Amino acid sequence: MKFLRYGEPGREKPGFIDSNGTIRDLSGEVADLAGDILDPERLAKLSRLNAETLPAVAGDPRLGPCVAGTGKFICIGLNYSDHAAETGATVPPEPIIFMKATSAIGGPNDDLVLPRGSEKTDWEVELGIVIGRTAKYVSEADALDHVAGYCTIHDVSERAFQTERHGQWTKGKSCDTFGPTGPWLVTKEEVPDPQNLPMWLKVNGETMQNGSSKTMVFGVAYLVSYLSQFMSLQPGDIISTGTPPGVGMGMKPPRYLKAGDVVELGIEGLGTQKQRVRADA
Amino acid sequence: MKFLRYGEPGREKPGFIDSNGTIRDLSGEVADLAGDILDPERLAKLSRLNAETLPAVAGDPRLGPCVAGTGKFICIGLNYSDHAAETGATVPPEPIIFMKATSAIGGPNDDLVLPRGSEKTDWEVELGIVIGRTAKYVSEADALDHVAGYCTIHDVSERAFQTERHGQWTKGKSCDTFGPTGPWLVTKEEVPDPQNLPMWLKVNGETMQNGSSKTMVFGVAYLVSYLSQFMSLQPGDIISTGTPPGVGMGMKPPRYLKAGDVVELGIEGLGTQKQRVRADA
Repeated sequence: MKFLRYGEPGREKPGFIDSNGTIRDLSGEVADLAGDILDPERLAKLSRLNAETLPAVAGDPRLGPCVAGTGKFICIGLNYSDHAAETGATVPPEPIIFMKATSAIGGPNDDLVLPRGSEKTDWEVELGIVIGRTAKYVSEADALDHVAGYCTIHDVSERAFQTERHGQWTKGKSCDTFGPTGPWLVTKEEVPDPQNLPMWLKVNGETMQNGSSKTMVFGVAYLVSYLSQFMSLQPGDIISTGTPPGVGMGMKPPRYLKAGDVVELGIEGLGTQKQRVRADA
Repeated sequence: MKFLRYGEPGREKPGFIDSNGTIRDLSGEVADLAGDILDPERLAKLSRLNAETLPAVAGDPRLGPCVAGTGKFICIGLNYSDHAAETGATVPPEPIIFMKATSAIGGPNDDLVLPRGSEKTDWEVELGIVIGRTAKYVSEADALDHVAGYCTIHDVSERAFQTERHGQWTKGKSCDTFGPTGPWLVTKEEVPDPQNLPMWLKVNGETMQNGSSKTMVFGVAYLVSYLSQFMSLQPGDIISTGTPPGVGMGMKPPRYLKAGDVVELGIEGLGTQKQRVRADA
C-alpha cells in the first residue's frame, strides 16, 4: 500500500493511492500517519479497507511529507562504497550516524530553498526507512518487524556548512527544505527486497546519480538493529540510509545547485520527487 | 516565573511554582508547555494569573522535562574555553553544533540509564535555552525576543560511543535518559543576565564541575542568532550551550559513571537535578 499526506503545509490529511491511482482520503479513519497508526499491524488493517467507500480526492493536491510526528531524522553517512570513494573517504567499519533537523522535512515537490550565503548546496537521493514500532536493542533478525515502510528522501547538503564551518555535519544538513520526504510511505509487502532498489537523480534533466540499494554497505535490517543499540527508535522516526555515487561534490570540478535548477529523483516503487531550486528571500 | 511539568512520563501536566513554593496546576489554562504557549507574550500572560485561583498540587510529584513538543535538541560543543582545554581541543572560531535525539529528553530526577556496553558515560552540566517564538535569520540584537526562558540540562555523553565508534558525536549523545531537562523553565525576567550564572555538578557528593556561564565563548544571544542562519528555530526547541570544565573525560585518569552513582547538578536560579545511575536491563 502507498500511503501519503496531502494538503497545505501543516494541514495535511492522510490518504492512500487506490488501484486506479486515485488518492483516497483517510481522515475519517485516522487523524494522521503518525505514532501508533504507523504500527505495521495498523497499516495492514488500513490496507484492507474498501477504497470505494472512502472519499476520492479531486484534482492534483500538494503532497506533504509522507509521515508525520517525526521525532528523529537520522542519517547514515558514506554508506555506499562508490560514494565514499568519490568523496575521498574510506568505508567506515561501523555506520556513521548524523542527524538532520526535523524542521528540514518537507513535501516531495516543495521548492528547495538555498539558504543565505550558500554556494555549495548538493543533492543526495536516499532510501528512507520509516519506523512503525518502538525498537530498542533489537536483533537484525527482528529489525524489520519495527519498520512501517520505505520512502524516497532527498538528503540535501550544504557542503561548505557541513565541512568548512567547523564541527559536525548537522550544520550543513539541517537547513529548511533540505529534507523532501515522500511522495509515499510504501509498506513492506510492496518492497520485498529493500536491498535491490534502483534509484536516480537528475538536475535539469541530466542524470547525476544512477545507483541501487544493492551496493549499500550496511543494509536496512542491520541499520535498524545497530541504531537501536544507541537509542530507542520510535514510530515516525526516519532513517535515511546514505546516497549512491554522483553527488556534485565528487565531480571535477565540483558542481552545485543554483537558483532556477530543477532536481528530479526517485527510487523504483517508492515514487519520484521534483524540486525547483530558489534563493531564500 | 518558574514553569514546570509534573506527573508520570508521557502524561505530564503543566504547572508553575507559586510564591510559597507550591506547584499550581495550569492544565485548566493550557494543554501543555509546548508550541504557541511558549511565546514570551503567552508566558507573560500566564504569569499574571492569580495563583490562588489555580489548584494546588499535593505531595511531591515526579517532574517531567520542563518543556514539551521539542523538535530539535541542539547542542553546542566546546563552548567554554577551559573545557576545550581539558579535552585537548582548541576553541573553535565558530560554534560547533551537534544534535541529541529528542528521545533522550527526560525529567530532571529520572534515573540515568547506562546503555548496554557503556564504559565511558560522562557528565556535563549545561545552560539550556528554550525557544519560544520561531527564529530565522534573526540578529543578535533581536535574538532574545525569540527565547521563552532557560533551564538546567544534563548533557550526558558516552565518550566511547561519541568518539571511538566512528563518525559524528550524536552516537554518544542520544541514548535514552541522556538529556534530563528541568526542573523549571524559568522565564527571562527572572534571568536578567544569562551570562553570569554559576553552575555545578557533583558525583556522590563530590564536586566535579564548578563554573559559570560567564566563561562561555559564544553567548546566548549570539548562539540563537547564529543557529537561525542555518535552520529555523521553533517553539519548544532546546539549545544546550556547552559545559564548563570538570568532565570525567578530562581527569587523569579519566573517570566515568557507574551503576549506583548519584549525580546532582544545578544552575543558580534555574533549579537542581538529581539522578541515580543504573545499568540498562
